[in-house]
Amino acid sequence: MYRTHTCGDLRIEDVNKQVTLSGWVQRIRNLGGMTFVDLRDRYGITQLVFNMETNEPLCGQARELGREYVLQVTGVVAERSNKNSKIATGDIELLVEKLVVLNVSDLPPFTIEDDTDGGEELRMKYRYLDLRRRTVRDNLMLRHKMAMEVRKYMDEQGFIEVETPVLIKSTPEGARDFVVPSRMNDGQFYALPQSPQVYKQLLMVAGFDKYFQIVKCFRDEDLRADRQPEFSQIDCEMSFVEQEDILRTFEGMTKHLFRTIKGVELKEDFLRLPYADAMKYYGSDKPDLRFGMKFVELNDVVKGKGFKVFDDAAYVGGICAENCAEYTRKELDQLTDFVKRPQIGATGLVYVRYNADGTLKSSIDKFFDELQLKTMAECFGAKPGDLILILAGPQKKTLSALCELRLEMGSRLGLRNKEVFAPLWVVDFPLLEWDDDSQRFYAMHHPFTSPKKEDFELIKTNPGAVRANAYDLVINGVEIGGGSIRIHNDELQQKMFEILGFTHEEAEHQFGFLMNAFKYGAPPHGGVAFGFDRWVSLFTGSDSIRDVIAFPKNNAGRDMMIDTPSEISVAQLAELGIQVVKK
Amino acid sequence: MYRTHTCGDLRIEDVNKQVTLSGWVQRIRNLGGMTFVDLRDRYGITQLVFNMETNEPLCGQARELGREYVLQVTGVVAERSNKNSKIATGDIELLVEKLVVLNVSDLPPFTIEDDTDGGEELRMKYRYLDLRRRTVRDNLMLRHKMAMEVRKYMDEQGFIEVETPVLIKSTPEGARDFVVPSRMNDGQFYALPQSPQVYKQLLMVAGFDKYFQIVKCFRDEDLRADRQPEFSQIDCEMSFVEQEDILRTFEGMTKHLFRTIKGVELKEDFLRLPYADAMKYYGSDKPDLRFGMKFVELNDVVKGKGFKVFDDAAYVGGICAENCAEYTRKELDQLTDFVKRPQIGATGLVYVRYNADGTLKSSIDKFFDELQLKTMAECFGAKPGDLILILAGPQKKTLSALCELRLEMGSRLGLRNKEVFAPLWVVDFPLLEWDDDSQRFYAMHHPFTSPKKEDFELIKTNPGAVRANAYDLVINGVEIGGGSIRIHNDELQQKMFEILGFTHEEAEHQFGFLMNAFKYGAPPHGGVAFGFDRWVSLFTGSDSIRDVIAFPKNNAGRDMMIDTPSEISVAQLAELGIQVVKK
Repeated sequence: MYRTHTCGDLRIEDVNKQVTLSGWVQRIRNLGGMTFVDLRDRYGITQLVFNMETNEPLCGQARELGREYVLQVTGVVAERSNKNSKIATGDIELLVEKLVVLNVSDLPPFTIEDDTDGGEELRMKYRYLDLRRRTVRDNLMLRHKMAMEVRKYMDEQGFIEVETPVLIKSTPEGARDFVVPSRMNDGQFYALPQSPQVYKQLLMVAGFDKYFQIVKCFRDEDLRADRQPEFSQIDCEMSFVEQEDILRTFEGMTKHLFRTIKGVELKEDFLRLPYADAMKYYGSDKPDLRFGMKFVELNDVVKGKGFKVFDDAAYVGGICAENCAEYTRKELDQLTDFVKRPQIGATGLVYVRYNADGTLKSSIDKFFDELQLKTMAECFGAKPGDLILILAGPQKKTLSALCELRLEMGSRLGLRNKEVFAPLWVVDFPLLEWDDDSQRFYAMHHPFTSPKKEDFELIKTNPGAVRANAYDLVINGVEIGGGSIRIHNDELQQKMFEILGFTHEEAEHQFGFLMNAFKYGAPPHGGVAFGFDRWVSLFTGSDSIRDVIAFPKNNAGRDMMIDTPSEISVAQLAELGIQVVKK
Repeated sequence: MYRTHTCGDLRIEDVNKQVTLSGWVQRIRNLGGMTFVDLRDRYGITQLVFNMETNEPLCGQARELGREYVLQVTGVVAERSNKNSKIATGDIELLVEKLVVLNVSDLPPFTIEDDTDGGEELRMKYRYLDLRRRTVRDNLMLRHKMAMEVRKYMDEQGFIEVETPVLIKSTPEGARDFVVPSRMNDGQFYALPQSPQVYKQLLMVAGFDKYFQIVKCFRDEDLRADRQPEFSQIDCEMSFVEQEDILRTFEGMTKHLFRTIKGVELKEDFLRLPYADAMKYYGSDKPDLRFGMKFVELNDVVKGKGFKVFDDAAYVGGICAENCAEYTRKELDQLTDFVKRPQIGATGLVYVRYNADGTLKSSIDKFFDELQLKTMAECFGAKPGDLILILAGPQKKTLSALCELRLEMGSRLGLRNKEVFAPLWVVDFPLLEWDDDSQRFYAMHHPFTSPKKEDFELIKTNPGAVRANAYDLVINGVEIGGGSIRIHNDELQQKMFEILGFTHEEAEHQFGFLMNAFKYGAPPHGGVAFGFDRWVSLFTGSDSIRDVIAFPKNNAGRDMMIDTPSEISVAQLAELGIQVVKK
């Protein structure tokens, strides 16, 4: 037996007990004739005490220990004179009688503390040491707990978790596939799944009724902070349901997770915001609703007053920042610089101060008198003390820039607290997106998404206006998940392929087996998939999904710790029937 | 709302309720003026009734339905005059008032019944229809429930489920890797994990203390009935433990699964059978202990009596089949043919009948008189009425043949009931196996397995005799899982690599990052991995793991349903920097 207790177990009630602990040396301090060692394991830290006077050899041995040595110690629990209320074991310490060094340690390349001195690259190379830090471990423990609660909720709702294959078939549509050469089938390849989409629909055809899976998915894309070549989804599908059934079920799951993981009780029904409104009022299909600052369009109010910037713009609109009328010149310049950044792309920023004394002052006083400014202010419902910020330009670009400005103001005003959560459903997504380059429609969600019944007639006349039975769960400006009601009717599916510009042969080649399955009694069905890593990041307040993945890869898709990808042997290549060529 | 109830919900208490159901047409029968339709979903079957007299158009419509059509029906629940006690809804039927055909179906290529007329190939091609069969679906529902219970137990024991990467590094040792070309790293490849072995050990170095994961693993091997290119493991690792801690923890898990999934209470502690005894008494490291028939070695008793077959054999031994003395000549010939099969390879079978009247009769009466036969019988503890079966030959081959004979006799005597379970731990495996071809030792488990302390001294003098802290869980002759206590000491690990014939450079190249991690305070640790598919097969009584996998591959590694692996485009190959070559 290596231990009787963990390093997080002992309390004042345990005083005088003889116990054995095992763990890592976090810290060693010598104070006069005493030596104190903080012994750490997953469960906590316990202070060990060695006394030079009562046991010189043992205390001498303790003084030889290094950071991260692995110890087994036996001793008697004693009350601490100098209690530490910050840790659960802070009332006691262990008077060590026996010390076994289970393993030594080289000096770690960075400090294993909540705030470490290690840079990201070093921490990734020594990820096993980085994982010893409480903050990283806590993230992964929350991740585990969250997966448990997802499964618990889904099981209680009658969902069955079914493992779908990892070695599947490559399809040219969508993101880039990772592929796996098949040794047994010359010149052929498997692909790793970008999602189990097809399989979950087949499970509905198979009558599984309610399916879910927490599952690894793969995309061979260039990486960013919130992307990894492999990531995890909570993937779900249900039969004999309409959109309402799905939203209700997964709103339930979301509330369950908030309650059990974050201790947050979300009593209200989630807002359901049509896509068109999300774009109109927030310039984004994933608005951060922790704060207001809805966009107000001013086209009718401001045009024709001789201000060319407004007159030439397809869209003029703005937001009202409460109690910001006293922003300094410098602050306004900062905001102007912000919106003019290339990635945001506005040409300038117009402001209107609604001063506390009721007067109005703007950067466009030349063109608008106070009465006109007042009219504008009224459009925003502004009060004295508020600041109105206005952008003008092409519709899409300006809405998008205004979205960024709104988020920036939200951050500046402290309205984006990580422990406040504003979930909503964005609904009524367009079915199709027009692509100017290829002069064709693309499915906004995927080619199996069903159009809304009330828009059926538009399919022929105005496909771009057709709304889909598609929905996203958005929390704090992050798209946590999305899904749709699928097409289960063969005829409608053929029509969709036509609109998407597939020939019959192409559709058959790519989706033939699914089309074939649909001939044998496909039920009405729909589903949703949630980005598990992203959701965990949201709950842990992490900036990157890397912080919630045990062994993530860097931006070049490399695992720095085990140094992969790497070359493989000539024999391996030969057996697989492939060779490496210069690109 | 597509339904108010499922097809498995309605009971006698629901009579007179108006309800709506959705599901598939299982069967249609016309009886006089009535039409009966069995409507099926995941939850059960409900009988629908249509009446030609009361509603001719509706009944006429029902008569046009085909098998596997998808329906939505509304009607009133009525008590059945002709109750069906075999199904949960057998007391009631639904008098249909409204019928909506949600989807039509082509005639399925095989019957969707418990006993289908479809051959395996056809069922694999139309797996989504095969999955509609209750037997297959029940397997997957049990699988889901079992995964839930594994996670519940492990979570309660303080284990954290951590997802380890799927894109890892190829290592030449072990089975063949599947590899994935990296687009972003020219000429380099990821490998898919054969197990998360290295990662779980790194998680122990990281102080995670108790890890588990239900995880997909991959091996590019030629396939057999109980192998798939991708399979699932229950993978576990613990720190600060000895073998005893691991066996106790996972015996607990095993009992929990038997209790919750099979309703079987295993009260006794599992037998712990040393490897040496398993080989001696059962000729196998995974003995089926549902029945006795232990081997008895007869070398001392039978040699030197002039029977050349025995005299020349390194091993003479047999089993005693109770109450089989009256086996016919034909039965004995069958058994002789059985042991002479090439894959078993015995040269002949000797029998001794211990007749009910106390006389003894054998196939070697020429060499052994009745007294000598009696002595043999006593070695087996045989009684009048028993049959003794003896094999002779080279030690290893004969033990193995005797093992097959024992299993065959167990099957013939009905002693291998699928609903009886005999779990045991096989312990004290040898650390190393000698390979005659390459004239070197191989790690029997893997190179990180620790030797038993009491055998440390043998490492230098007689490595083949060193026993490992390694163990297998065996149930009914199936190896369900196995593991070991790992080496956590750098010096001992180096020694192991030496014995295995690795140069320092080779060890460094293959396991360098693990060795490096071990320099920073690796705790004592050990673990185990269970074959999840195999375990589910055992619980469902399936002959192949294919029966418990939603979308399995065939023996050529092909998924017949989606037709993969398949060729990929020239553009994809070019982007990955590889090309296909003739083998």
